Amino acid sequence: MTRLAVGIVGASGYTGAELVRLIAEHPELSLEYVGAREKAGQRLGDVLPSVEGDALAERTLEAFEPSHAEALAERLDVVFTALPHAASAAAGRALYEAGLTVVDLSADFRLKSAADYEKWYGPHPAPELLDVAVYGLPELHREELSGARLIAAPGCYPTSSILPLAPLLAAGLIEREGIVIDSKSGVSGAGRSPRPNTHFPETSEGLRPYSIAGTHRHIPEIEQELARAAGESLRVVFSPHLAPHSRGILTTAYARPRAGATADACREAARARFAGGLVSVLAEGRLPDTLWVRGSARAHVAYALDERTGMLVAVCAIDNLAKGASAQAIQALNASRGRPDGLGLPRVAMLP
Amino acid sequence: MTRLAVGIVGASGYTGAELVRLIAEHPELSLEYVGAREKAGQRLGDVLPSVEGDALAERTLEAFEPSHAEALAERLDVVFTALPHAASAAAGRALYEAGLTVVDLSADFRLKSAADYEKWYGPHPAPELLDVAVYGLPELHREELSGARLIAAPGCYPTSSILPLAPLLAAGLIEREGIVIDSKSGVSGAGRSPRPNTHFPETSEGLRPYSIAGTHRHIPEIEQELARAAGESLRVVFSPHLAPHSRGILTTAYARPRAGATADACREAARARFAGGLVSVLAEGRLPDTLWVRGSARAHVAYALDERTGMLVAVCAIDNLAKGASAQAIQALNASRGRPDGLGLPRVAMLP
Amino acid sequence: MTRLAVGIVGASGYTGAELVRLIAEHPELSLEYVGAREKAGQRLGDVLPSVEGDALAERTLEAFEPSHAEALAERLDVVFTALPHAASAAAGRALYEAGLTVVDLSADFRLKSAADYEKWYGPHPAPELLDVAVYGLPELHREELSGARLIAAPGCYPTSSILPLAPLLAAGLIEREGIVIDSKSGVSGAGRSPRPNTHFPETSEGLRPYSIAGTHRHIPEIEQELARAAGESLRVVFSPHLAPHSRGILTTAYARPRAGATADACREAARARFAGGLVSVLAEGRLPDTLWVRGSARAHVAYALDERTGMLVAVCAIDNLAKGASAQAIQALNASRGRPDGLGLPRVAMLP
Amino acid sequence: MTRLAVGIVGASGYTGAELVRLIAEHPELSLEYVGAREKAGQRLGDVLPSVEGDALAERTLEAFEPSHAEALAERLDVVFTALPHAASAAAGRALYEAGLTVVDLSADFRLKSAADYEKWYGPHPAPELLDVAVYGLPELHREELSGARLIAAPGCYPTSSILPLAPLLAAGLIEREGIVIDSKSGVSGAGRSPRPNTHFPETSEGLRPYSIAGTHRHIPEIEQELARAAGESLRVVFSPHLAPHSRGILTTAYARPRAGATADACREAARARFAGGLVSVLAEGRLPDTLWVRGSARAHVAYALDERTGMLVAVCAIDNLAKGASAQAIQALNASRGRPDGLGLPRVAMLP
Repeated sequence: MTRLAVGIVGASGYTGAELVRLIAEHPELSLEYVGAREKAGQRLGDVLPSVEGDALAERTLEAFEPSHAEALAERLDVVFTALPHAASAAAGRALYEAGLTVVDLSADFRLKSAADYEKWYGPHPAPELLDVAVYGLPELHREELSGARLIAAPGCYPTSSILPLAPLLAAGLIEREGIVIDSKSGVSGAGRSPRPNTHFPETSEGLRPYSIAGTHRHIPEIEQELARAAGESLRVVFSPHLAPHSRGILTTAYARPRAGATADACREAARARFAGGLVSVLAEGRLPDTLWVRGSARAHVAYALDERTGMLVAVCAIDNLAKGASAQAIQALNASRGRPDGLGLPRVAMLP
Repeated sequence: MTRLAVGIVGASGYTGAELVRLIAEHPELSLEYVGAREKAGQRLGDVLPSVEGDALAERTLEAFEPSHAEALAERLDVVFTALPHAASAAAGRALYEAGLTVVDLSADFRLKSAADYEKWYGPHPAPELLDVAVYGLPELHREELSGARLIAAPGCYPTSSILPLAPLLAAGLIEREGIVIDSKSGVSGAGRSPRPNTHFPETSEGLRPYSIAGTHRHIPEIEQELARAAGESLRVVFSPHLAPHSRGILTTAYARPRAGATADACREAARARFAGGLVSVLAEGRLPDTLWVRGSARAHVAYALDERTGMLVAVCAIDNLAKGASAQAIQALNASRGRPDGLGLPRVAMLP
Repeated sequence: MTRLAVGIVGASGYTGAELVRLIAEHPELSLEYVGAREKAGQRLGDVLPSVEGDALAERTLEAFEPSHAEALAERLDVVFTALPHAASAAAGRALYEAGLTVVDLSADFRLKSAADYEKWYGPHPAPELLDVAVYGLPELHREELSGARLIAAPGCYPTSSILPLAPLLAAGLIEREGIVIDSKSGVSGAGRSPRPNTHFPETSEGLRPYSIAGTHRHIPEIEQELARAAGESLRVVFSPHLAPHSRGILTTAYARPRAGATADACREAARARFAGGLVSVLAEGRLPDTLWVRGSARAHVAYALDERTGMLVAVCAIDNLAKGASAQAIQALNASRGRPDGLGLPRVAMLP
Repeated sequence: MTRLAVGIVGASGYTGAELVRLIAEHPELSLEYVGAREKAGQRLGDVLPSVEGDALAERTLEAFEPSHAEALAERLDVVFTALPHAASAAAGRALYEAGLTVVDLSADFRLKSAADYEKWYGPHPAPELLDVAVYGLPELHREELSGARLIAAPGCYPTSSILPLAPLLAAGLIEREGIVIDSKSGVSGAGRSPRPNTHFPETSEGLRPYSIAGTHRHIPEIEQELARAAGESLRVVFSPHLAPHSRGILTTAYARPRAGATADACREAARARFAGGLVSVLAEGRLPDTLWVRGSARAHVAYALDERTGMLVAVCAIDNLAKGASAQAIQALNASRGRPDGLGLPRVAMLP
């Protein structure tokens, strides 16, 4: 059993905290480096009290600069980058070019088109790497991931949107036109920095949409992957909502089935597609719940056909920090090395 | 100023508790009777600790039977009935026939068609009253409500679904076909009886759909009212979700605009329709939040047009126990008497 | 019925929002002025979305400076000041000297000793007014409040700590020595400005003490009032906790009963003391719950004697923004004018 | 590496769910049997949706009767019993007598005195085993645990109460008299069965004490262990509270320091006592938070001395289902086998 030396750049946010939690349990990963920008020099246990008591708490956050990449390549095999966009691309490029395997959790390497990136985020700092990077959704891109050294871990909303729909588009079970995606995210999806709309009293009895009507940055990522599955371009309506829980995204998607497509056929297509992965298709009559996947690397998917209107309803639940970010990043790394997707990842969710 | 003597039948649930709270502040209503079935004989302060300390706490819940209607008509002018369906119709009929004004908060008098009622709920106990009853949404049925003596207070999901869409259908701004309604409700919508799926630890980090794909009983009510607005029958996709907060429904609805319809036109049509009522259309760029209407009698509505896909997104937030139940019941009673809709109702929501 | 013209200075925080909600329903108060510092010029509905839809939403926040006091005295009878400490004293002094009645919700006029104030907060901007100001807890200081023109609305922790203990100390039922006060507050007590420890994901499953072991600023206020009740100085152990709810403080206090003191005797002493006020002493066997007083002006108090150890346990629940701040401020104003304590205040809590 | 075949009796509650989660990750435990009473015959994934997607989901809950003990001894090495009290003792006795190692998570084997048990719970079904059973708090009873075959996993409130105080009593740093323990528990501590007071809307903004003043069943367990540490009997005031979160107990305890005892001395004594265990003593100035230990096997403890009153404040945070139940049960099993306490247990808490 080879053990890889891994590092995290940007460990103080929620995806960083989750990476630390998951790597600590992984039998083939050893956390050797924890880098940060603003919090460099601080004790890890002070920044992430979730490690307090473990030996990890006594680590010191090292100041990270892209120029450290060569030196880090001496110490590490893999680096997870979890910085804000643009900064993450700069870090990722330096580390990748220094020979490291890079798993990036930002949006920076997810889009194939630099023009799309520019439209939604601004100029891309390393456009030449967009073709190199592999979109790290093992259930859809297992072959591409094999041996990949630059992996773009998918976004949380995209994961929950792509998983239930891509197999149906690939199998020709639904129309490309008129797809509506209504997503409800817990507040950890907004990051760890406090803001007025994430202040507890403003949130605990509040449920609200935001960035609706074609304005959310995750749209191009969703459309890119659904188009790849469909073999044709498409556009989706995407409505994100902030709901009063910490972890978990519940996505409810609506699509027109093609003639003869049944909920059973959707379940079959999805199960076939997800073989070897970490996505479970629930039996008829059961519907996903964010609680059921909290802390686990798993997604739950379900389908129902509305006989009165002929509309197909597809539902997906994930933990936005696990399958929607850090656990999927590790799953993709596992897959890139030919290891089982779930290796070292939590098999069972935390209930309650 | 006339003061009406009012009673509540079924005071121990959440809509009953909310009626007690609201009637206590209403300048023209005086709570003279509190009836119950199982909790008869108990002290009101023990059943509703929210009144503890007030003189109301010392009231005793009286045993209610439909046969008491004649005697109650001696003591009361108005009765709010908040019993489970079928039981509420039986109570409502007796009280109505005894000459009382009845505002029923169950589903029993909402549907115009006894056949529809039977399909979704079972045989109707008092079908002859379905034509007599007025659907108590003052913003849509103000004229019918004038002088009404049997008022069906609308359901919570229907209120949040009908309000944002009916004005657009009435004005011909959206297509009747393909409407999708995605609603997220707080847990109080499930009533006051504990169940496995409302147990705190199963709910606080859980967000889940239920009764999707054409199976929820509120569908015929929504379709009835939208069809009345459209002047033609229609069918909707309706997906209810249980979200981890106590009060509030956030409904996100999707519809195809007709040629030339803009978000501005939708706002104008809605504002015109809601004049004199308790529904606010938010300015462009603002989106509703359940927190903003908690405890108030008000609904907030907003519209946005997704230019990329051409889809209209309509959003509505209400407090399911206030505008979605008890406050709207009082608003409808106000309207039936020619009084201002908001008379005696909370003007300002509780923040936080 | 005289109607007073009232203003609020510092309307954009939670106590301000609660004042707006309560004044809107009060039959003898009319909100004529809303002043702010940083948010001056903004529309009230944008700052407090809880008023959106009401005519109040269209008000503009006026820039407040103490130098405006004379001009405000032309327009207003009463001003509620709800600014950070020191700023509130400066505002309050100017308004008071201009002839207005001032109800201050900060800590600035609560302590009788300028030295105590300086020790915990810094130099007092208006020490000459400390003797003039009346501590606005009507259940304890009704006579002093009569005609008062400068009222210090009590703090939230102090209200919940003083109420259950003061009547026992006054009646000689408990020892002054060894009192322990363990308080649990909802997050709205921390104000409306977002901070790392009030960020939803850091709070929703977190319960934590802070400022324990004699370091919290509310200690001198608690000790002052308990000493006044006891007729002798005393010191208390006070431990505040932040709990994962929005509104409500639950205080559990421990004291040694004097010989022969029973829980019944405590209930009797407390009931006698609270006559005419808004504090309810629960019957034996019932214990307070923050939910039961949410949104109401009421406090619930209970007593139990631990026979095994001889310790008395006193419990109090209040809504920190209502009885712990804004509703009590109005109650004190009512009392100062010889009106019933509860005039215009919510009689029934919001359940749920 | 030996792998033990383990079973769970009573897997459908929260401690059962947590055992399944933890055993699934443990390198030396293999879950071979899942027994239940009422839910026998059901699919594990239907009862515990947290395992849905894992192979464990396809297990069937086997009907458990104490008479099956002999047969189970053929298949298993260790059984965790998590049944209601009395039933758990009956199951535990049968399994123990059949030669299995038993780790019981009920209250049945925690008390040394059958008379105490009878007073608080009723007649003990297997009093002869009370002397055999070892109280499974490894930080205090490591030697006794070595080789133990009947282990009583400590209660959640007792764990959080004993840990911060026992080292101080053992070291003579605090007085035995006058200890006050104020505990705040999340709702999962009330079990998985829905009840009126655990219904989400009754809980989410509610914080309340219950079973105060010497009436909670965990008192004899707390007093037994503190007395063993002190070498003398003692009595404590214990006040449990239900707080609006799912997991986590925060205990704030108050004690009189003996002459010269400082917070530093307390920290030192505790650190010495906890060596090799899973309890961390936080540095001066840091205070525990339930969020920081959620899902981990760890307890956090802190001490502060109130100079104004001379009172010592001791604080402890645990996850009631982890260190307060299932993780501690596995920790005790680890210790009984001479393995490191934390073997196979989560090192890092789930943040958020």
